[in-house]
Amino acid sequence: MRLVKVAATQMSCSDNQEHNIQKAELFVRKAAKEGAQIILLQELFENLYFCQKEIEEQYALAKSLEENKAILHFQKIAKELQIVLPISFYERQNNARYNSIAIIDGDGEILGVYRKSHIPDGPGYEEKYYFNPGDTGFRVWQTMYAKIGVGICWDQWFPEAARAMALMGAELLFYPTAIGSEPHNAQIDSKDHWQRCMIGHSASNVMPVIASNRVGVEVIEDSSISFYGSSFITDATGGILKEADRTEETTLVCQFDLDEIEALRTSWGIFRDRRPDLYKPLLTFDGVNQVQ
Amino acid sequence: MRLVKVAATQMSCSDNQEHNIQKAELFVRKAAKEGAQIILLQELFENLYFCQKEIEEQYALAKSLEENKAILHFQKIAKELQIVLPISFYERQNNARYNSIAIIDGDGEILGVYRKSHIPDGPGYEEKYYFNPGDTGFRVWQTMYAKIGVGICWDQWFPEAARAMALMGAELLFYPTAIGSEPHNAQIDSKDHWQRCMIGHSASNVMPVIASNRVGVEVIEDSSISFYGSSFITDATGGILKEADRTEETTLVCQFDLDEIEALRTSWGIFRDRRPDLYKPLLTFDGVNQVQ
Repeated sequence: MRLVKVAATQMSCSDNQEHNIQKAELFVRKAAKEGAQIILLQELFENLYFCQKEIEEQYALAKSLEENKAILHFQKIAKELQIVLPISFYERQNNARYNSIAIIDGDGEILGVYRKSHIPDGPGYEEKYYFNPGDTGFRVWQTMYAKIGVGICWDQWFPEAARAMALMGAELLFYPTAIGSEPHNAQIDSKDHWQRCMIGHSASNVMPVIASNRVGVEVIEDSSISFYGSSFITDATGGILKEADRTEETTLVCQFDLDEIEALRTSWGIFRDRRPDLYKPLLTFDGVNQVQ
Repeated sequence: MRLVKVAATQMSCSDNQEHNIQKAELFVRKAAKEGAQIILLQELFENLYFCQKEIEEQYALAKSLEENKAILHFQKIAKELQIVLPISFYERQNNARYNSIAIIDGDGEILGVYRKSHIPDGPGYEEKYYFNPGDTGFRVWQTMYAKIGVGICWDQWFPEAARAMALMGAELLFYPTAIGSEPHNAQIDSKDHWQRCMIGHSASNVMPVIASNRVGVEVIEDSSISFYGSSFITDATGGILKEADRTEETTLVCQFDLDEIEALRTSWGIFRDRRPDLYKPLLTFDGVNQVQ
């Protein structure tokens, strides 16, 4: 038996960076008090979701791994509480900028950084303006409590990312997120569609998915987004165990037996019966030309 | 607007091949009467699910494409009713045997054959005993009514198969199936897990999934399986539109506007934002060694 307790937080963010970090700490301490050992904060929680509009001044929000305040802050908390904390941040390295996540282990050390691979772009979600496409490839991390894979927001729509992390040995998949209404079309509500993609990753890879999304209405210039929360945690077959509503600020905590899940994953035979010899179309955009 | 009506059938099968074909025809005619243009019959409906036990005599059930009775029978029906019929069959070619599907177009012509890529193997589902792993790779078919992809049963657990067909231009994904209880462990009920995998393929590829499963209890020697039906059709975001229960013999019919779905798929940007340059781990079994 190899028990691990995981948590997802859900909160609103303001334009006060200091305040956002303090609020995140409150929810992290709350989850830790409930026994959570790996706690997922949402995407880019230090700021408003600035990608809502293309504003040149906002490039200055990007900091190097060493300069980012949230990471420095939560390294201390991780060490104090002996918890694993993936911390999402806007990363600058030289002339490149990334949507990144630093994985802080339970001793406060940084295991490394993953840079978001899939970058969305559309009204309200202008991420191609702010971020280079991630150059790290998918990564997994042997933390004190489990081997984890972490995708960032839009990554969660891509079965390739989840499968790659599962193949590399991930036992749990984490997705920090910022998603809500579509400013150009109030009719669109992607909440169910968003959840179903990750339910699929969980079911197809036979492992829990932990998703953390923000709540609250954020206005930037003439645009606004209502972030729909609905953070959730699945069991190893894609069944939702815990789910937050669209507005509450909360933490979700679930316990898993990783040995039991591994036995299920093995017995189900999916990772035995794959056909990599037939998967070359996945390396194309269009089913025809292989991307180098 | 490009409307198409699709159907999934759900029925029990007996050890009488002639009777199974007649019953399948009844359901096909019923669905066609409701306007269905592409009608999915379940996997290997000509026979009991013979893979429940390893019995040497059952190798004789395999026939060449030209000799298979169901295909000859349904070519006439397809032409008469101007309907597309993917017909699952146990295929023999020389010394190889496959779990195959022949795609009959609305004029009765065979567009080609796909051979099941992912072959399960476990108590009650001894498919590696009966079938070579499919050698066709994933295929899509430009039928009279839509470009379709067809996976066979166990294929439906693999996001790679669905994604490959979507990349190759499939507009609808069809999965004929034979799945039910696990003879070695009455506690296992995979129905929700099974559905969630396909819900994920639908959501992640932004296209409907049509799944047809058998019902009924089949006994072979000392073993029995209760096939759990639960055939279903999703919308383009993974939402279940129609679902059969675990025991009824029935047909499900849904209509889609393929132009509307294509517009949604395009606007959502998933096929623009993929990163084939990062997907090489998918060509491995273990995250390390690339399979040739």
